Amino acid sequence: MVDFLLNIELHNNSSYQQQIREKLVQLINQDAFADKALPPSRKMAQLIGVSRNTIILVYESLVEEGYLISRERRGYFVDPDLPVEANLAVEDVHPLSPSHAPNWGKRLQKNLSQFTSLNKDKDWLKYPYPFIYGQINAQEFPTYQWRECSRKVESRGKVHEWVEGFMGEDDPELVTQIRQQILSKRGIVAQADEILITLGTQNSLFLLANLLAGEKVTFGVEDPGHADLRQIISLCHSPVKPLALDSEGLQVGQQLKECRYVCVTPSHQYPTTVTMTVKRRKALLEQARKDNFVVIEDDYESEVNFIEKPLPALKSFDQHGRVIYVGSLSKSLSPGIRIGYLVADKKLVKELRKLRHLHYRHPPANNQRIIALFIAQGYYDSHVRRMRRSYEEKWLLMQQGIERYLSACEIHSTAGSFCFWIGLPESMPSHLLRAAAAAKGILIESGDSLFSQEHAPKNYIRLGFSAINHDKILPGLAILGKLIDDLQKAI
Amino acid sequence: MVDFLLNIELHNNSSYQQQIREKLVQLINQDAFADKALPPSRKMAQLIGVSRNTIILVYESLVEEGYLISRERRGYFVDPDLPVEANLAVEDVHPLSPSHAPNWGKRLQKNLSQFTSLNKDKDWLKYPYPFIYGQINAQEFPTYQWRECSRKVESRGKVHEWVEGFMGEDDPELVTQIRQQILSKRGIVAQADEILITLGTQNSLFLLANLLAGEKVTFGVEDPGHADLRQIISLCHSPVKPLALDSEGLQVGQQLKECRYVCVTPSHQYPTTVTMTVKRRKALLEQARKDNFVVIEDDYESEVNFIEKPLPALKSFDQHGRVIYVGSLSKSLSPGIRIGYLVADKKLVKELRKLRHLHYRHPPANNQRIIALFIAQGYYDSHVRRMRRSYEEKWLLMQQGIERYLSACEIHSTAGSFCFWIGLPESMPSHLLRAAAAAKGILIESGDSLFSQEHAPKNYIRLGFSAINHDKILPGLAILGKLIDDLQKAI
Repeated sequence: MVDFLLNIELHNNSSYQQQIREKLVQLINQDAFADKALPPSRKMAQLIGVSRNTIILVYESLVEEGYLISRERRGYFVDPDLPVEANLAVEDVHPLSPSHAPNWGKRLQKNLSQFTSLNKDKDWLKYPYPFIYGQINAQEFPTYQWRECSRKVESRGKVHEWVEGFMGEDDPELVTQIRQQILSKRGIVAQADEILITLGTQNSLFLLANLLAGEKVTFGVEDPGHADLRQIISLCHSPVKPLALDSEGLQVGQQLKECRYVCVTPSHQYPTTVTMTVKRRKALLEQARKDNFVVIEDDYESEVNFIEKPLPALKSFDQHGRVIYVGSLSKSLSPGIRIGYLVADKKLVKELRKLRHLHYRHPPANNQRIIALFIAQGYYDSHVRRMRRSYEEKWLLMQQGIERYLSACEIHSTAGSFCFWIGLPESMPSHLLRAAAAAKGILIESGDSLFSQEHAPKNYIRLGFSAINHDKILPGLAILGKLIDDLQKAI
Repeated sequence: MVDFLLNIELHNNSSYQQQIREKLVQLINQDAFADKALPPSRKMAQLIGVSRNTIILVYESLVEEGYLISRERRGYFVDPDLPVEANLAVEDVHPLSPSHAPNWGKRLQKNLSQFTSLNKDKDWLKYPYPFIYGQINAQEFPTYQWRECSRKVESRGKVHEWVEGFMGEDDPELVTQIRQQILSKRGIVAQADEILITLGTQNSLFLLANLLAGEKVTFGVEDPGHADLRQIISLCHSPVKPLALDSEGLQVGQQLKECRYVCVTPSHQYPTTVTMTVKRRKALLEQARKDNFVVIEDDYESEVNFIEKPLPALKSFDQHGRVIYVGSLSKSLSPGIRIGYLVADKKLVKELRKLRHLHYRHPPANNQRIIALFIAQGYYDSHVRRMRRSYEEKWLLMQQGIERYLSACEIHSTAGSFCFWIGLPESMPSHLLRAAAAAKGILIESGDSLFSQEHAPKNYIRLGFSAINHDKILPGLAILGKLIDDLQKAI
């Protein structure tokens, strides 16, 4: 009877109680015990090699949750009132008959396979040298502070504030904290009704495109630039115009004239990391007014500059309501939690809120409330400061290592950003180096998919350093440099 | 100097430490202390009326977080290295010049104001008798169990499993739990690659419409039915065909012939609560095969039937891959957490996953992992069982009360669902009753916006009982009944 329990293989990754309870719930759902008693706690404890107390605690918690009942002197039984729903009568399930299945290929109204995504490797954690961009080092996450906030928000007296959701609104406390502690540091003054909470930058951009794009509405996008942004815009039927850059950032003038929307990354151009000069920012806004276009500012790495004070956001120079500002906590706190925000004219925010309501109502309410508290308690700022110090050290190591080992390459070094944009020798395709490096445990990103045109250069790579450990940087770059030199001889 | 601190008005809604720290972080950010010492702990404690220990703990935590430094015998000071970013130079901010602002009215590509939403009152908690649908009673949320799972998932050894996000994938543990413990109870056998995690039913439907709708692709929607679904489909440019119902649920036959997609709510028709008979289910699937349409099954209230065993999902009868199944935890656990799932052909799921990646990447990873554990530990099932008992009691009270007090009305009583669909006397417009009831503290929903046609009946209301307390049901219905009688005399 209890033999099958022997295959509870306990590991140290979670508590024994948790593992045993999970297994018992499974067995109960499969009706494995029927009307027989569960093994007595002493026997069970021996069988799977834990203390008897552990078993008793699990049994008692299952009584509490209505799975088991305890019968005097006879032991624990599955509650006979427990509905055995796993055995729902499904008379008609036969194997699928594929001949009558719909033809999905013909039914799709969007061809998503046309979109090449940045080939991010979801197994990046397995690489000893992950020079990946957009991820963080989980060990640096402020676990203790996050848990404290989570514990407070999820306490009995507080749950009712978020568990019902916000009916399409946002958490007013989060909006306040973003205004007071995040936007103010970027020089942005915004009222509550000019802010919308989203699921991150990607989601902000999608909502904007869904509302504003259309067949005759041209969107300008930096080239190279954010590949997923180009795809969103195409998905929403707008023409995408690739925009040229120079050492001051996006070029203003003729190329912007036909655009109704201009998408830019002024703090650090994505992916070249160039910071747009103040002069250029003013020229851009002046042209926006004159030529009646709207600027969408993606301030994805705003709060970082290792050498001098960062410039305020482009939005802070905006006198005519011509800038929509997009920010997120993905780079600064966690890409897994998915919280971002946008700042725009309140008329526009009102419409975006309606649209968001149809898309998904609102970002999860518990996370909104936890983050509000996390910011209010000063934990967010102090985390950003800590990360800045950590990133500054890494950035210096990167500079050193790149100078020392990647001398064959063209380096675009800037004073901020969590990555370096690097031109390989012209004859060396980045995808070739990427594959060769991966074989040696080094993960780098090819820049190919960030360019919009087919005849674009194929010899750019991006080296991110937000996720890699300090002590892996120099050794990793040494191996990479050797590889580049070897490849150059071989080509 | 410290006078402004006097306006820390402490309340009992959160801990004193939390409130004082929040206030001090605010003051430090405003540079209120400059280079002067903070008030000594003893003085500060007297000033705001808390123990000295509380102040010392707050000061020390701010030292820990890099806001303060402690100087021997001189007290606590703001760390002079703390960047004062609130004072970013924003030379150019003038008041907005509205004459140069974009004309947003002309720029919107979607007219969202055409969509009338169910007029849900976000202040519903303030009504003594909230007969509202889709909300829950926060006191019944399994706070203790949720916190236990949250605490485990957010522990130092576990954070790394979710804080980086899932790169467009889903939490495999959540997918496993949904397969084994939720879908199995609905008679559905699904592989992991046939499941997509979403932000709830609304989000599942939006992703489907975004991928499958188009100008010549007709979607059939029950009438009356889910108003936001009609809006999503229109937003995605598909024609919406209203579909007639009868006492067995959706009518099959001629009216479905021109549909490429048929959206149904078989377990309890939304909003009339009728359960589709087995005979009708089989006829619907047979016609789907013959006329080559696909059925989208919204199983929003699946797990509830107060009288007999609930029928398995329509999807469980599906032999030809013609049913897309949509479910969520909003009704059973919390509408605030925003987690749902869909089951479909793996080719379709693969495309939907790509689309979701462009929309918002993935639902927040911490919530996915917490819910996975919550289900695995048996807490979800045991919560559903508890709620079923609670709802059954309420449902019986509702039946009693409606019979006793609403005798002038036509009642559509069914054995499941968290609401009653009620026809008022024909001459009584539901919006009139809604307004009159609200004035007496009773919140009811007018059915008007759930019908698709303009000449639809105006005398239907929905009475939900998931959020209202047991002891408010009979008194609330008594007042409502009196109001209906009075109104009938007055009209």
